Amino acid sequence: MRGLDDLATPAVLVDLDVLERNIAGMAERARRAGVGLRPHVKTHKSVEIARRQRAAGAVGLTVAKTSEAEVFAASGFDDIFIAYPVVGADKARRLLELHRRVRLAVGVDSAEGAASLAPTFRIAGQRLRVRLKVDVGLHRVGVAPERALAAAREIAALRGLELSGVFTHAGQAYAESDPGALVALGRHEARAVVGVAKRLREAGLAVDDVSVGSTPTAPHAMVVPGVTECRPGNYVFHDASQVSLGSCRLADCALSVLATVVSVSGDRAVVDAGSKTLSSDPLRPGGVGHGWLLGRSGRIERLSEEHGVIRVGDDERLRVGERVRILPSHSCLVSNLHERLVGVRGDEVETDLAVSARGCVQ
Amino acid sequence: MRGLDDLATPAVLVDLDVLERNIAGMAERARRAGVGLRPHVKTHKSVEIARRQRAAGAVGLTVAKTSEAEVFAASGFDDIFIAYPVVGADKARRLLELHRRVRLAVGVDSAEGAASLAPTFRIAGQRLRVRLKVDVGLHRVGVAPERALAAAREIAALRGLELSGVFTHAGQAYAESDPGALVALGRHEARAVVGVAKRLREAGLAVDDVSVGSTPTAPHAMVVPGVTECRPGNYVFHDASQVSLGSCRLADCALSVLATVVSVSGDRAVVDAGSKTLSSDPLRPGGVGHGWLLGRSGRIERLSEEHGVIRVGDDERLRVGERVRILPSHSCLVSNLHERLVGVRGDEVETDLAVSARGCVQ
Repeated sequence: MRGLDDLATPAVLVDLDVLERNIAGMAERARRAGVGLRPHVKTHKSVEIARRQRAAGAVGLTVAKTSEAEVFAASGFDDIFIAYPVVGADKARRLLELHRRVRLAVGVDSAEGAASLAPTFRIAGQRLRVRLKVDVGLHRVGVAPERALAAAREIAALRGLELSGVFTHAGQAYAESDPGALVALGRHEARAVVGVAKRLREAGLAVDDVSVGSTPTAPHAMVVPGVTECRPGNYVFHDASQVSLGSCRLADCALSVLATVVSVSGDRAVVDAGSKTLSSDPLRPGGVGHGWLLGRSGRIERLSEEHGVIRVGDDERLRVGERVRILPSHSCLVSNLHERLVGVRGDEVETDLAVSARGCVQ
Repeated sequence: MRGLDDLATPAVLVDLDVLERNIAGMAERARRAGVGLRPHVKTHKSVEIARRQRAAGAVGLTVAKTSEAEVFAASGFDDIFIAYPVVGADKARRLLELHRRVRLAVGVDSAEGAASLAPTFRIAGQRLRVRLKVDVGLHRVGVAPERALAAAREIAALRGLELSGVFTHAGQAYAESDPGALVALGRHEARAVVGVAKRLREAGLAVDDVSVGSTPTAPHAMVVPGVTECRPGNYVFHDASQVSLGSCRLADCALSVLATVVSVSGDRAVVDAGSKTLSSDPLRPGGVGHGWLLGRSGRIERLSEEHGVIRVGDDERLRVGERVRILPSHSCLVSNLHERLVGVRGDEVETDLAVSARGCVQ
């Protein structure tokens, strides 16, 4: 059996015990809430991890991009929601191919965007299932709740499309420094989208799916009556930002980066993991630092491409050649930077997990 | 001939005319200064682009990691400097394999780190060429100039190693908002390392290579007498940070990201390129924003994984479905996120450039 000492650094480790507990825990939450769990696989992009989520009861997968859907469809996943406003006739042709093979749904947030997809399906005599994105305060994509009915009517009128649901993502949760605020935000998110669904149904539009997202808000949003589905992604790994937010404990973090100290000078130590390994996403909320040393008090204070610079106290010296484990600030970006993750139990290497959809941004 | 409209977005474009001009320009500068040009290929990680640099007169390549050296060695590059303090017996074994095939040099900045490489070479009856990293103010890795002689003596005494040079990287240039400061900084960098080389030689240590780095300082550092080599990387592509620094013009930027507007709301537009396409590195110096729209006044104000959020003025609306070109804040991170770059001339697609060493962080 290989151990951690046998790995070249930097290496991205996934603690399989924690991973399995996270997968089972969220599945159990969703079961108890009576909603479908459709995990967002952008976090890991791994067919192997998605299989574990399906085995635990996931009703389908969420992805962000058409190319991610293609990878997971090719690996036997037959129910996929692209939670992103896909736009353009070239993408529509790829969606049609997917639609012929899997139960597909796609996000929309404007009549213009939806109209760029509809003709391909209309001409093929097919109807693409679309869900309307509702903006509940992140102000990124989505229509404001008060504009949702008008947008839904325009979209539902397009031949070649079938409006099947509404969905939200309360990503503003990542700016909250008070864990209590996550409860209120999850409820707000769910009530807003349930309210939109009600108004759409009263207007005669069929809205089957009422879907909420985000790891910090999912536990609080999924229990609101009227929600049918939740789409957390990060929960499989968690990260330093989730701990800072109060949405998980340190012991719930499955992904870490094994790195080697390559240089020490005074109170500064440098490891062989930089922004090409950890990403340059800062710690949320607050934006200070780029990862914590596990089992120690230091953190990555600054990054360059292949260097992580740590300030260490007098009580705790790091030596050149020593290995450390780093809890990154944002695990979803870390997996995307690597070809494979290393599945470990304790200090033993158990398996390699290919990042099957790495770099699938189209 | 394919055009830009035939590409799926997001796509990373490389303007081949600008690329070729940048490659030729830096080669000409080095020739005039009488120094060897050893470009850092971490910027593009592309065998094809490295071949163009070699054809223009590069004396060899610079890489950051052992795995990058392995990729370029396998593609016929026979003179490689790993400008990074490589540490550990496992890496030493890989370096020995490389050393048997190519003219290899490796960075060191401590006797401890160097001692982790030496035994593998000593036992094999070989000597690994190492260069001592000198810290000229970035305070990342490297020994302070006043400590260089002591460190060099310790390292040169290790059997299995051959101390062949000194090198620097004045990365603090990226915090300079006054272009005039780059001139002073380049001269400071070069004089500091030339001074170290002189002291080492006076002490009887053979120091052949006196190597300076960084795109913003290279033109000013390479002309200082005593410098033998320069290692700029970013100059092949440049980016918004180089323009902000005043180290190039907008017309010198070769890499851009073609993206589609997927959502518009009020003065906000969202494109299908986020931190998994552009990286989350902020614009230097100053750290505001994540890329500029080319031919327009907008910039990417915030990023999530697959979304770039642009604030647009009343005079300039973006429409859903419209395509824009984004000049990223840091091109070295962009290429690493993608499997291939698209080489274009004007609006015509000429070739695909594989990112051969993508993800090679070990």
